[in-house]
Amino acid sequence: MTLAHTGEFGLIERVVERLSVPLAGGAGVDMLLGPGDDAAVVRAPDGRVVACTDVLVEGRHFRRDWSSPLDVGHRAAAANLADIAAMGARPTGLLVGLCAPKDLPVAWAEEFSLGLAEEAASVGAAVVGGDTVASPVLTIAVTALGDLENRAPVTRAGARPGDIIALAGRLGWAAAGYTILSRGFRSPGLLVNAFRRPEVPYAAGILAAQLGATSMIDTSDGLIADAGHIAKASGVRLDLRRSYFELPTQMADSANALGVDPYEWILTGGEDHALVATFPPDVMLGGAWREIGVVREGEGVTVDGAKWTSAAAGWDHFRTDVG
Amino acid sequence: MTLAHTGEFGLIERVVERLSVPLAGGAGVDMLLGPGDDAAVVRAPDGRVVACTDVLVEGRHFRRDWSSPLDVGHRAAAANLADIAAMGARPTGLLVGLCAPKDLPVAWAEEFSLGLAEEAASVGAAVVGGDTVASPVLTIAVTALGDLENRAPVTRAGARPGDIIALAGRLGWAAAGYTILSRGFRSPGLLVNAFRRPEVPYAAGILAAQLGATSMIDTSDGLIADAGHIAKASGVRLDLRRSYFELPTQMADSANALGVDPYEWILTGGEDHALVATFPPDVMLGGAWREIGVVREGEGVTVDGAKWTSAAAGWDHFRTDVG
Repeated sequence: MTLAHTGEFGLIERVVERLSVPLAGGAGVDMLLGPGDDAAVVRAPDGRVVACTDVLVEGRHFRRDWSSPLDVGHRAAAANLADIAAMGARPTGLLVGLCAPKDLPVAWAEEFSLGLAEEAASVGAAVVGGDTVASPVLTIAVTALGDLENRAPVTRAGARPGDIIALAGRLGWAAAGYTILSRGFRSPGLLVNAFRRPEVPYAAGILAAQLGATSMIDTSDGLIADAGHIAKASGVRLDLRRSYFELPTQMADSANALGVDPYEWILTGGEDHALVATFPPDVMLGGAWREIGVVREGEGVTVDGAKWTSAAAGWDHFRTDVG
Repeated sequence: MTLAHTGEFGLIERVVERLSVPLAGGAGVDMLLGPGDDAAVVRAPDGRVVACTDVLVEGRHFRRDWSSPLDVGHRAAAANLADIAAMGARPTGLLVGLCAPKDLPVAWAEEFSLGLAEEAASVGAAVVGGDTVASPVLTIAVTALGDLENRAPVTRAGARPGDIIALAGRLGWAAAGYTILSRGFRSPGLLVNAFRRPEVPYAAGILAAQLGATSMIDTSDGLIADAGHIAKASGVRLDLRRSYFELPTQMADSANALGVDPYEWILTGGEDHALVATFPPDVMLGGAWREIGVVREGEGVTVDGAKWTSAAAGWDHFRTDVG
């Protein structure tokens, strides 16, 4: 059965049914009015709301033959929830715009919705609303909302020379998984699954804000590109230390087998949604945070004091294709 | 110059420049942190935020040879702001996901952004954030945020038998304009322009809430379809009175020339974004609100007591194409 059979309203009914499945365990406590009206109403106890939008396009951000609809749902939610976490906020709700070809199996849309709701529920948030339209290209636009819990938002603009640069989450795993899939392989599963479904260190975002982070960003475009946004907004240089980065053996082995420099994945690969933050020098890092460098006077991003030269400088969606 | 030249970050810079142009006159007072970080921060003084998402796809919701980029920007904003108004809320901010082909002229994206910001500014809101990605199909996903100013949201579920049904805004104008354009004509301009850029009675939404509206909806899919949503959610029948509807001479003349029943446009045409609400029988309607029928026991929507039979029962985006 495809969307041509159910129509828009039939699809919405089925999707909304799936969305309410995983609302156990406290997820949805902020949803005062959910799907089914002109708009949703979500609690914003802080008197401010944090909001961001991220779009995934088939063939560019995901492929249906590489990822299950459940994976795509998880990833679409994660990409947005990570942005909320990167402000030091607690996610409260998601809205989804689903643009689907008429021949999309209804089961795909249902499983996708389940993945979206599951990922949101993992941080206590719910899918509160959305829109479905027909389109020749399967496109997923997600908006995430969050609450700052009376903290100041952690922007990209507060890094100061002397600050410690720290990382929470994985780097290079998604890029490695993508390279493996694009060469026609399906293993190691650890890396391929990291591309299919990122593991975002959500709790580290709020912890960073509590620890007094001076700046923070979600690494969706690759570490060097995203650290560059902090450098530019803060008017400083971010100097990363290569020896501080973990290189899992699976990644080292895959890089070797594929003839790739694994640090290219780690330093420039996108879509892992790790968090990068800067902290005052006397911070006691905790949780998932670990040191990866130091903030200095100057501009741009360096690795061990020198400019990193590589084929790719990060993911620019108008220049690079995923698949 | 196209997006292939500017790249994603170059486009974002240019778009953000345009977005800040019309922020005079109080628009943007709710934007605490605007475009350029992982997420925006918007005031939610009520402690709740109203949020909705609406997606426009080229060839389905707009055509570049029929509408200017400025018009498309206005329409994309209006479609979402109308949903906020239909809850009885005041719009505070917009987020936009722009999926653009690489050969899209940068000037198109800039003008579109200006239209979006102008429409938002007309209600005191600002474009606070968004995302740009490459896509084979020009697709615009807009999310609107709003504040309820300590009022209860006006949902679709509160209509009671005996309530007055009232309308604010125009009906059938966009559908007439669409029919005219699709037959290859370009006039009358009044109707064609109504299709290109809806005139949403934003203030009527808040007024309805203040007047004690028992239900409200934005008529994006056509009056009968959208009144049907109120009927279903409220468990009542909405009986419309045909003689209560305005039939502008330009619409009557065009309908006559094209061999169309103009009440087909009025009762089933979408995309005007008029507001329909129900009120207690003793209400003193004011502002743009005028009576169009009465709520009765039963189900569904009737016109002068009988089911309206027509070719189309409203716009279902998986079944109907715009252009």
